[in-house]
Amino acid sequence: MLKPLGDRVLVEVIEETEQKTAGGLFVPDTAKQKSQRGKVIAVGSGKTLDNGTKVPVEVSVGDTVHFAKYGGTEVTLAGKEYSLFAERDLLAIEN
Amino acid sequence: MLKPLGDRVLVEVIEETEQKTAGGLFVPDTAKQKSQRGKVIAVGSGKTLDNGTKVPVEVSVGDTVHFAKYGGTEVTLAGKEYSLFAERDLLAIEN
Amino acid sequence: MLKPLGDRVLVEVIEETEQKTAGGLFVPDTAKQKSQRGKVIAVGSGKTLDNGTKVPVEVSVGDTVHFAKYGGTEVTLAGKEYSLFAERDLLAIEN
Amino acid sequence: MLKPLGDRVLVEVIEETEQKTAGGLFVPDTAKQKSQRGKVIAVGSGKTLDNGTKVPVEVSVGDTVHFAKYGGTEVTLAGKEYSLFAERDLLAIEN
Amino acid sequence: MLKPLGDRVLVEVIEETEQKTAGGLFVPDTAKQKSQRGKVIAVGSGKTLDNGTKVPVEVSVGDTVHFAKYGGTEVTLAGKEYSLFAERDLLAIEN
Amino acid sequence: MLKPLGDRVLVEVIEETEQKTAGGLFVPDTAKQKSQRGKVIAVGSGKTLDNGTKVPVEVSVGDTVHFAKYGGTEVTLAGKEYSLFAERDLLAIEN
Amino acid sequence: MLKPLGDRVLVEVIEETEQKTAGGLFVPDTAKQKSQRGKVIAVGSGKTLDNGTKVPVEVSVGDTVHFAKYGGTEVTLAGKEYSLFAERDLLAIEN
Repeated sequence: MLKPLGDRVLVEVIEETEQKTAGGLFVPDTAKQKSQRGKVIAVGSGKTLDNGTKVPVEVSVGDTVHFAKYGGTEVTLAGKEYSLFAERDLLAIEN
Repeated sequence: MLKPLGDRVLVEVIEETEQKTAGGLFVPDTAKQKSQRGKVIAVGSGKTLDNGTKVPVEVSVGDTVHFAKYGGTEVTLAGKEYSLFAERDLLAIEN
Repeated sequence: MLKPLGDRVLVEVIEETEQKTAGGLFVPDTAKQKSQRGKVIAVGSGKTLDNGTKVPVEVSVGDTVHFAKYGGTEVTLAGKEYSLFAERDLLAIEN
Repeated sequence: MLKPLGDRVLVEVIEETEQKTAGGLFVPDTAKQKSQRGKVIAVGSGKTLDNGTKVPVEVSVGDTVHFAKYGGTEVTLAGKEYSLFAERDLLAIEN
Repeated sequence: MLKPLGDRVLVEVIEETEQKTAGGLFVPDTAKQKSQRGKVIAVGSGKTLDNGTKVPVEVSVGDTVHFAKYGGTEVTLAGKEYSLFAERDLLAIEN
Repeated sequence: MLKPLGDRVLVEVIEETEQKTAGGLFVPDTAKQKSQRGKVIAVGSGKTLDNGTKVPVEVSVGDTVHFAKYGGTEVTLAGKEYSLFAERDLLAIEN
Repeated sequence: MLKPLGDRVLVEVIEETEQKTAGGLFVPDTAKQKSQRGKVIAVGSGKTLDNGTKVPVEVSVGDTVHFAKYGGTEVTLAGKEYSLFAERDLLAIEN
């Protein structure tokens, strides 16, 4: 498995088939960035502030998180793909 | 539902039909950015300063906020679209 | 009405007809940015420093301020247009 | 008159006719930025540091200052043109 | 051998032949960055914070680390190639 | 004369005729920036740190300094040309 | 000779003829930056942190250092060429 470094978070991206709008296929009508969903698999130990204290990451293993669609770095583990994000690139948790 | 992370804010964007000027259709005459309106649906726990203290976000659930038109990241929840903003991208509250 | 967030300032822009030079129409002769004038309508609560203290904005409601011509974000309120500025984008107060 | 905000400085630019080199007309031979001169008309109250203290500007009304030729923002006051600079854009004082 | 400076880490990159997906050859289907793996050969003494304290790097000699594919600087030592990374460019440790 | 502001330094650039390599004319063979030499004519009072203390500049009047060839801003004083540098743009002192 | 300013380091670049790979001529196969080697000739007094303390540079005169190939600024001293680097541009010491 992977232990993320610093404030990074390992995420298994969820396929987007259920992400369509109610009316059917998605029709882009704005210039805004889209988000994507994933499940948190592992989290780093946190970010070190300029005063030396460490701030733990705000998400936990098992959380379903949203992030900007083209963020993160892809990593392949045992033939399966994951993405590694800096915590600031995660936008929200489903609850 | 979604719990925004850090100082992020989940907003339901309000359609712009009532945003026209008094004289009728809007005629762009400057190079300035336009703002758009939305309702705050959920807020993050705030931003951590470099000295380790957390500053709560300045807006609350239910507030009508203004933001630059092309900011934020779109997210689809139960077939409905929302936008996630960092607090610094929100400009003002209607009161 | 609008309550600006953070160190933002809501400004009603003043039409530029009296901004011409003494000799008549303005003839641009430099590459410099031009400024524009406006009246302060509302101010935010201020900017939070990295040590957690809040610094109030330096301008007050009613002040006539100068700012770079293409700065700010336009907002329409009751059919009338205003601009929202971060305080650092305001240059001077008329006195 | 104008009261500059923050660490801004209001300057009346001095016409450059006496700025030629000894040998006659100026012949540009380098890729360097040129400076221009002006008289300080008004100064802001200073810049607020991250620890909350305010640092007064280093120039005074009446000083002749040098600055990069295309810096600053032009402002017209009673048919006369001035420039507004952030203090960091002023390079030196004549003495 | 090499002693990395500051928070840099010397890594021996692992050839990617076992990095293919289960189904065979890798077919790129997103705009995301890919990661690559390597073994940590040497680490620097750490990064100096603005308050003067030194933070040791989070990885150790012998760790298998993941990093963005095109990061780092290549260095040749005794005919063998290594890469030098700033610690922030390392994403995760295998465990 | 000129009194530089902040951590700026006034330099009289030295003509480069003695800067050729031993073998004759200089033949550029790398993509590196070249440096140039000059004499320090005047120095500013120093740079104010974020904690409010002022750090004096590290060079003195009369020093021969090296700097990147196309840095600085040119200023003409009594028909003679000088350059104004921020201290961080000076690279070394001859000794 | 030259005394580097701040955290700068004066380096005599080592010719790269022995830098080839074991198999013969170097064939570039990645988009990564290459490093180059040099000998430290002189070091500056160090970098001043935001809290006013000075951090000495981590390398010493006589060290063999590695750096990114196109970094630094070239300087000619007595017909011989050297490079001046900010300490952060040095990557590792040979030991």
